[in-house]
Amino acid sequence: MDVSVTNAQVTLVQLDNYGPWTVTPEPRREADLQTMQSRLYADLSQFFGTRDGYVFFTRFDNMIAVTNGIDRAAHARLQESLRNRYPVTVSLGIGAGANPADALVDATAHLQAAGSAQDAERREVLAGDPLDDDERTDDDVHIAHFDVNDATGKYTDELDAFSTFVRIEQGYASLMRALHDDHDGLAFFVGGDNVIALVPELARETYEAVIERVREEADMSLKVGVGAGRTATDAGMAAKHALEVCREDATTVEGDVAIRN
Amino acid sequence: MDVSVTNAQVTLVQLDNYGPWTVTPEPRREADLQTMQSRLYADLSQFFGTRDGYVFFTRFDNMIAVTNGIDRAAHARLQESLRNRYPVTVSLGIGAGANPADALVDATAHLQAAGSAQDAERREVLAGDPLDDDERTDDDVHIAHFDVNDATGKYTDELDAFSTFVRIEQGYASLMRALHDDHDGLAFFVGGDNVIALVPELARETYEAVIERVREEADMSLKVGVGAGRTATDAGMAAKHALEVCREDATTVEGDVAIRN
Amino acid sequence: MDVSVTNAQVTLVQLDNYGPWTVTPEPRREADLQTMQSRLYADLSQFFGTRDGYVFFTRFDNMIAVTNGIDRAAHARLQESLRNRYPVTVSLGIGAGANPADALVDATAHLQAAGSAQDAERREVLAGDPLDDDERTDDDVHIAHFDVNDATGKYTDELDAFSTFVRIEQGYASLMRALHDDHDGLAFFVGGDNVIALVPELARETYEAVIERVREEADMSLKVGVGAGRTATDAGMAAKHALEVCREDATTVEGDVAIRN
Amino acid sequence: MDVSVTNAQVTLVQLDNYGPWTVTPEPRREADLQTMQSRLYADLSQFFGTRDGYVFFTRFDNMIAVTNGIDRAAHARLQESLRNRYPVTVSLGIGAGANPADALVDATAHLQAAGSAQDAERREVLAGDPLDDDERTDDDVHIAHFDVNDATGKYTDELDAFSTFVRIEQGYASLMRALHDDHDGLAFFVGGDNVIALVPELARETYEAVIERVREEADMSLKVGVGAGRTATDAGMAAKHALEVCREDATTVEGDVAIRN
Ligand SMILES: Nc1nc2c(ncn2[C@@H]2O[C@H](COP(=O)(O)OP(=O)(O)OP(=O)(O)O)[C@@H](O)[C@H]2O)c(=O)[nH]1
Ligand SMILES: Nc1nc2c(ncn2[C@@H]2O[C@H](COP(=O)(O)OP(=O)(O)OP(=O)(O)O)[C@@H](O)[C@H]2O)c(=O)[nH]1
Ligand SMILES: Nc1nc2c(ncn2[C@@H]2O[C@H](COP(=O)(O)OP(=O)(O)OP(=O)(O)O)[C@@H](O)[C@H]2O)c(=O)[nH]1
Ligand SMILES: Nc1nc2c(ncn2[C@@H]2O[C@H](COP(=O)(O)OP(=O)(O)OP(=O)(O)O)[C@@H](O)[C@H]2O)c(=O)[nH]1
Ligand SMILES: [Ca+2]
Ligand SMILES: [Ca+2]
Ligand SMILES: [Ca+2]
Ligand SMILES: [Ca+2]
Repeated sequence: MDVSVTNAQVTLVQLDNYGPWTVTPEPRREADLQTMQSRLYADLSQFFGTRDGYVFFTRFDNMIAVTNGIDRAAHARLQESLRNRYPVTVSLGIGAGANPADALVDATAHLQAAGSAQDAERREVLAGDPLDDDERTDDDVHIAHFDVNDATGKYTDELDAFSTFVRIEQGYASLMRALHDDHDGLAFFVGGDNVIALVPELARETYEAVIERVREEADMSLKVGVGAGRTATDAGMAAKHALEVCREDATTVEGDVAIRN
Repeated sequence: MDVSVTNAQVTLVQLDNYGPWTVTPEPRREADLQTMQSRLYADLSQFFGTRDGYVFFTRFDNMIAVTNGIDRAAHARLQESLRNRYPVTVSLGIGAGANPADALVDATAHLQAAGSAQDAERREVLAGDPLDDDERTDDDVHIAHFDVNDATGKYTDELDAFSTFVRIEQGYASLMRALHDDHDGLAFFVGGDNVIALVPELARETYEAVIERVREEADMSLKVGVGAGRTATDAGMAAKHALEVCREDATTVEGDVAIRN
Repeated sequence: MDVSVTNAQVTLVQLDNYGPWTVTPEPRREADLQTMQSRLYADLSQFFGTRDGYVFFTRFDNMIAVTNGIDRAAHARLQESLRNRYPVTVSLGIGAGANPADALVDATAHLQAAGSAQDAERREVLAGDPLDDDERTDDDVHIAHFDVNDATGKYTDELDAFSTFVRIEQGYASLMRALHDDHDGLAFFVGGDNVIALVPELARETYEAVIERVREEADMSLKVGVGAGRTATDAGMAAKHALEVCREDATTVEGDVAIRN
Repeated sequence: MDVSVTNAQVTLVQLDNYGPWTVTPEPRREADLQTMQSRLYADLSQFFGTRDGYVFFTRFDNMIAVTNGIDRAAHARLQESLRNRYPVTVSLGIGAGANPADALVDATAHLQAAGSAQDAERREVLAGDPLDDDERTDDDVHIAHFDVNDATGKYTDELDAFSTFVRIEQGYASLMRALHDDHDGLAFFVGGDNVIALVPELARETYEAVIERVREEADMSLKVGVGAGRTATDAGMAAKHALEVCREDATTVEGDVAIRN
């Protein structure tokens, strides 16, 4: 069985009433929406990232952040900063839980309780509570960084760009489901051939089984580096270093995995 | 049979030797990479978008643009602008074809012929040729804008944020494959519950069948607006307006579809 | 006498009703305003700059651009792009004239005729006319790029940072007045120790006299490269190359200066 | 006499070896430099600003920040974030002092001691020490926010845009010198008709005399709001609110001024 000692704090970032805005008074040019969405995401990544958090673009109108160590005041300051610089505003739901999936259920519930994502009256909700400092430990956050073996040689330099993309997406879909359905992990595509997952503590055998499943379902060969830490950055950097060990030693799973007993 | 009269010009944007850069001299913080990637994508979207093109983030290290009407000099100017402002450079492959998939095969081939994506010597390639002005017509570009029916009520306000995301991704995966495998179309997730596809001219029945397939495979209900035009913006705005007609009239397919005979 | 054959097209970019916005409902944080203003300026610089124009930050709520070759449709597209991504909108006045100062008087007059800069009803004005294509010639734009000799050795590495700044500002103030009052030129500080001026065609002796005046008034030693071209970029790059000649040959004035007779 | 109880912490941000970079291998397009500089400044403003600091663009290659409460680790994180996203790097000198001018002398000295601003070997210096937490008090930072009376009616709507700019610059030059030469204050133009100054504690009569001097030297009528606080944001927001009191009551000096005795 998976041993779950993690304590992830997750923030759901939701653009307020964004759908109607995109078509009022008439449809806005897609390129402008894309520019605006990616700038806003970049600002979130700079904000959370320099506070040792991570944020994933997810659907762009709903983004998911790992925010261990980031308090309510910082969340409020972020809302203000965006309101002063963008034509849209954001609501923030903060959640915590014994595993990442539960933490996000909690974060989502706070926003849903405050009203619909497309309720014109619901604006800049800030709901849910960050972890107390004395609840926090040095391995609250577990990050698994997955990477495709030789993506350049097998896909990018071989197939046309869309076929490569389809392959990567299929691998990602398989991995995302394997981690979410069976292990309460949240996996995010971060570009290139990389997937970063917020996970509970998992055993080496679990990672091996997940990687095997992706090989079967999507015919894709992965390696993974796993890190644990007090914050997303600590865990994520440890995961990246573990991934480099995979690269050097041609191994498949490295880093902070649970010992099965 | 599908009648294919489109004449898409597609540009593949590829970061040069990006994988090695991300881990030299040691792994760079993911949040910084995310910020950099999304800023660079935003700049591309602003650049192409204000020249009536579209660009999709795809894998972020490989991005796909629809560039009808954008000449070689503009492509070169873009490379220079990025080189002067980012720590990375980009190669550009320009392709054209009787359908979007072929155009991208062509664009990709130009870059692959110049060397590997992770060849340290291959930098700022600019290869392939834009369409001649006298080859261009007023319906060279066909865009289909797909949108999930009542995503807010059925998913965003109901499920936790990751479960919604999984559902949207599954719908997208199904749609992407249906269009690519059978109709030479290139479909891109653009955020929220929206997918924009560069397509050949397709019949109403084809769209209905594609939407039916997504319903079966992914249990997701879609509508689509289709537009044709001289540029991506012309086609894309027409598609958005057609989608609004779907919304108003509760229909499933609207816009510039081929008449079957 | 100065021979004036230039034909500058100038655009005044004015944020609409910006003062009241900065204090509604109460004063907004200055750092957010600074971030927003500089991002907006960067977008303008990217937009005009990749169309061979130049834009100067000036007062940030009023910015001045050299827009030879940029038509009305591009100006309108810029307004739309900003409206879709910022919480503020811009009005644009386009002017032309036999010299830069007159061109800007014309550009300003178009906006003033449409209402006050702080009139809540006046939004997104687009007034004035770009030059006709057949009026344009290959030396419509003259740019003079001024640079302080050995600013690093004499100021940056010697004085404290504010004292250096004060010295640079004084040199700039003197230069700005010399060019504006006597030669209808518009000089803009662009960072570091650099001033870029939009000028009519001026004689070598005029530049020497201007530089002498700055030496007397502000005890600062300048060099200048001058370029002429069809667009701001053409003229500006020629000016930069001329400045490099000054650097290599230890001269004071190089480039496209008028021959006196 | 001025009573000086402030305790400003100031950071000098200096681009490393930037001059040579701008012309290597040949001069880079000015619009790209402007875009890059203003994006970098925006990132600094977002970074310091959401940590209750202020940063001023000054010369863009040398920027001055008020950083009370921001520690060394945050400064180092900023350097890393910029290195990962820009083609240039920054050195940071941190200084403190009994008045703003002295603090900046200290900050500058740290960088100058490490080498020339245009020494190719000197990169990413981080020198000087933040204030100890137990040295800090609730009125360490004093900010004076100056604003021109009716700039819209008297200048923007009346004169051409460059003449307005010349007037504003002259007012700023006079104010900058008055505060620096006689009161050890650092005044920065922040756009529009606004100047924000980092000052020691000054008496009401001092502000009145400074404003009178600007009226005489530059024929410009100012008001000022003054705030004190633990951080730049605290002091700056108090100053903005005081300025609103000036606006409402048609007064000239409001806020945290020293009582003369
Ligand atoms: N976001 C992100 N993307 C990365 C990172 N490392 C690599 N990539 C991306 O992954 C792509 C492929 O790079 P690599 O994984 O180094 O190349 P590969 O050919 O798969 O080689 P191996 O993984 O070493 O077998 C790059 O273009 C990047 O887009 C990372 O740390 N973060
Ligand atoms: N990129 C992009 N995203 C859009 C656009 N329109 C809507 N969205 C996104 O789609 C999400 C859902 O909005 P809607 O499609 O309006 O809402 P819905 O609940 O599905 O309602 P119906 O589509 O009207 O049934 C929004 O949050 C946006 O993220 C668009 O034109 N472009
Ligand atoms: N905006 C802009 N700034 C520049 C340019 N060239 C130099 N600078 C700035 O000017 C500063 C000083 O650089 P230089 O002019 O090369 O140095 P210097 O010490 O004055 O040396 P010389 O001019 O060669 O005597 C740099 O830090 C830059 O900020 C340019 O083309 N554009
Ligand atoms: N950076 C910055 N600029 C501001 C601020 N407030 C106003 N401005 C600028 O100042 C310009 C003039 O605005 P106001 O000062 O409100 O207008 P005014 O006509 O001078 O009127 P009064 O000051 O009320 O007499 C605006 O366009 C803005 O650029 C501020 O808090 N910060
Ligand atoms: Ca890989
Ligand atoms: Ca929808
Ligand atoms: Ca110089
Ligand atoms: Ca004012």
